[in-house]
Amino acid sequence: MNRDYADVSMAVIRRLPKYHRYLKDLMEKEIYRISSRELSRLIGFTASQIRQDLNCFGGFGQQGYGYNVEELYNEIGKILGLHKNYTTVIIGAGNLGQAIANYPSFIKYGFQLLGLFDVNPKLMGMKIRDINIMDVDLLEDFVRENKIEIGIICTPKEVAQNIADKLTKANINGIWNFAPVDIKVPNNVTVENVHLSESLFILSYLLNEKEHFKKK
Amino acid sequence: MNRDYADVSMAVIRRLPKYHRYLKDLMEKEIYRISSRELSRLIGFTASQIRQDLNCFGGFGQQGYGYNVEELYNEIGKILGLHKNYTTVIIGAGNLGQAIANYPSFIKYGFQLLGLFDVNPKLMGMKIRDINIMDVDLLEDFVRENKIEIGIICTPKEVAQNIADKLTKANINGIWNFAPVDIKVPNNVTVENVHLSESLFILSYLLNEKEHFKKK
Repeated sequence: MNRDYADVSMAVIRRLPKYHRYLKDLMEKEIYRISSRELSRLIGFTASQIRQDLNCFGGFGQQGYGYNVEELYNEIGKILGLHKNYTTVIIGAGNLGQAIANYPSFIKYGFQLLGLFDVNPKLMGMKIRDINIMDVDLLEDFVRENKIEIGIICTPKEVAQNIADKLTKANINGIWNFAPVDIKVPNNVTVENVHLSESLFILSYLLNEKEHFKKK
Repeated sequence: MNRDYADVSMAVIRRLPKYHRYLKDLMEKEIYRISSRELSRLIGFTASQIRQDLNCFGGFGQQGYGYNVEELYNEIGKILGLHKNYTTVIIGAGNLGQAIANYPSFIKYGFQLLGLFDVNPKLMGMKIRDINIMDVDLLEDFVRENKIEIGIICTPKEVAQNIADKLTKANINGIWNFAPVDIKVPNNVTVENVHLSESLFILSYLLNEKEHFKKK
């Protein structure tokens, strides 16, 4: 990153992947230029929100021209660190671990899967995307020797902290955690959680809220 | 819901599942009373944030006593609509669909899975948790006949909108969407998205941000 984005709020940063996804779609449709108003119609944020968000990163847009789709896409990709490659391992090779291993974005954006680990002896020796499933006892050495940057935890919640500890000891940089528990790690390790039940509970809230309004 | 929570912001609502999860853990550890300060230490929000959040729903806490864990847990559960049962189907019975079908929270909180659908002839007749995998051509009739409330889309992005249209026609109430695309539905259908790549991109942003600060 050349510019200093330290004062951009996380709320703006968290919207960037969505811009990135829509800009990618536009490029696939061979649309090379777009106004904040058209982008607003597509993406659902207001045009002024879009201008404000994208202004944080230096003015990509030009009055009367709009945004250059490819330029904006590339710049947001760089801000998100998607111009680099990352070495990863997945711990927990059940359905969720296998789904992540095969997730299209995962492959497309340079997240290189080097190892899959599990405790289930039945899975040992099986391959997912040409990657052998290995015994979790080998995890620490593997992460250290292969300088793995990201560990993806797809285990039951009971063992997630233990796995996080092993990854930390082996000098991991980041953890993408799918276990429904908040793992504790030192400050130099970054954790991003996907708590599926939180999203499900919000859906059930919204369903009830709607019903509530209907009855009024 | 007895009270009217219409003026509580979605930002507060989105934090409730996390409170719910921590309160559940406390109950499992047989802790029945907790101060906002102790809760703050556990959950990572500030104590004043916690008091402010929970005040929105009527004062559960008492000065000098703290919160009654079980009462707060039950009330938050009710706000989130978790005291009810929901009928669901999953569309896309690949790894992700199977992972969701087996997700512990899904089962524990009354989300009743009645059908699994796919296009892959190899999967037809297979069972996941005693549920037959059926041909997606049967989806609309099944949803209508069984008054299914929630459809869970675990398909590739190319077909997600088509599935959402079928669900909408069959009077679905809510869609939990895992396909990496924003589906369009009428206002009376609620959509909650889980865009895994957005979370992954935030992780890669945070990793780079950390590196950036290290170099300074």
